[in-house]
Amino acid sequence: MAMTVLRRRMNAQFHYTGIRVKDLDASLAFYTNVLGMTVRGRATIPESHGVVVDLVSEGSSHPLELNYYEPGSRFDVPFTAGEGLDHLAFRVPDLDRAIAEAAAAGAPVAHEVRTPRSRWVYLRDPNGIWIELSA
Amino acid sequence: MAMTVLRRRMNAQFHYTGIRVKDLDASLAFYTNVLGMTVRGRATIPESHGVVVDLVSEGSSHPLELNYYEPGSRFDVPFTAGEGLDHLAFRVPDLDRAIAEAAAAGAPVAHEVRTPRSRWVYLRDPNGIWIELSA
Repeated sequence: MAMTVLRRRMNAQFHYTGIRVKDLDASLAFYTNVLGMTVRGRATIPESHGVVVDLVSEGSSHPLELNYYEPGSRFDVPFTAGEGLDHLAFRVPDLDRAIAEAAAAGAPVAHEVRTPRSRWVYLRDPNGIWIELSA
Repeated sequence: MAMTVLRRRMNAQFHYTGIRVKDLDASLAFYTNVLGMTVRGRATIPESHGVVVDLVSEGSSHPLELNYYEPGSRFDVPFTAGEGLDHLAFRVPDLDRAIAEAAAAGAPVAHEVRTPRSRWVYLRDPNGIWIELSA
């Protein structure tokens, strides 16, 4: 993609992150029960035969939007867990407690990273998306 | 994934969104020159042979993290633009002006949606990720 430097840069605000979900109930259960997010809004989109649900977490004004497409929607293409979305990161007040809570809710730690100065873990959401937890 | 309702929900804060990029310079040019984001931090991660760059936009405290993995990194797997990341959304003060600025910077509108009450457009980032712009 050829690009030139603009004199005036677009004053765009990073507004929300939209992920696609295969099973809306399963993803809603994960993001609300495991990660403690709250449903802020829900809408059906007739033109795409889809449903969008906006979730927010405490301390963040950036919603996570779940995008579900009904069978027959032109966006209901086979789901592949591609590499474009590397991970979604969540910060928790107490990592060990969060790990225990997530495991009790059915989402055990899938990978743990320790460095001399820090430590963080990854879970998988119901679609295979990596969820990073750190304190 | 079997899940039970927790009595106490995890107090997790949605902290940032991490996308993987194939060409760090190309993605940096897109998110800074086209979308006007600012580099807040950059780090090399020896253990993953990777580089992470944190970008922020005005009016948002939620960073976009670009994740680049050097050849030979165990995370340098073939890139596929999967369906898990539906889109990244940016809000602009003036949609027509933003469309013109993006096109001048080499990122033309790829898809436009009009409803009776609203209008929004999509661009593609250098990795094929859908970028939504709305006013």
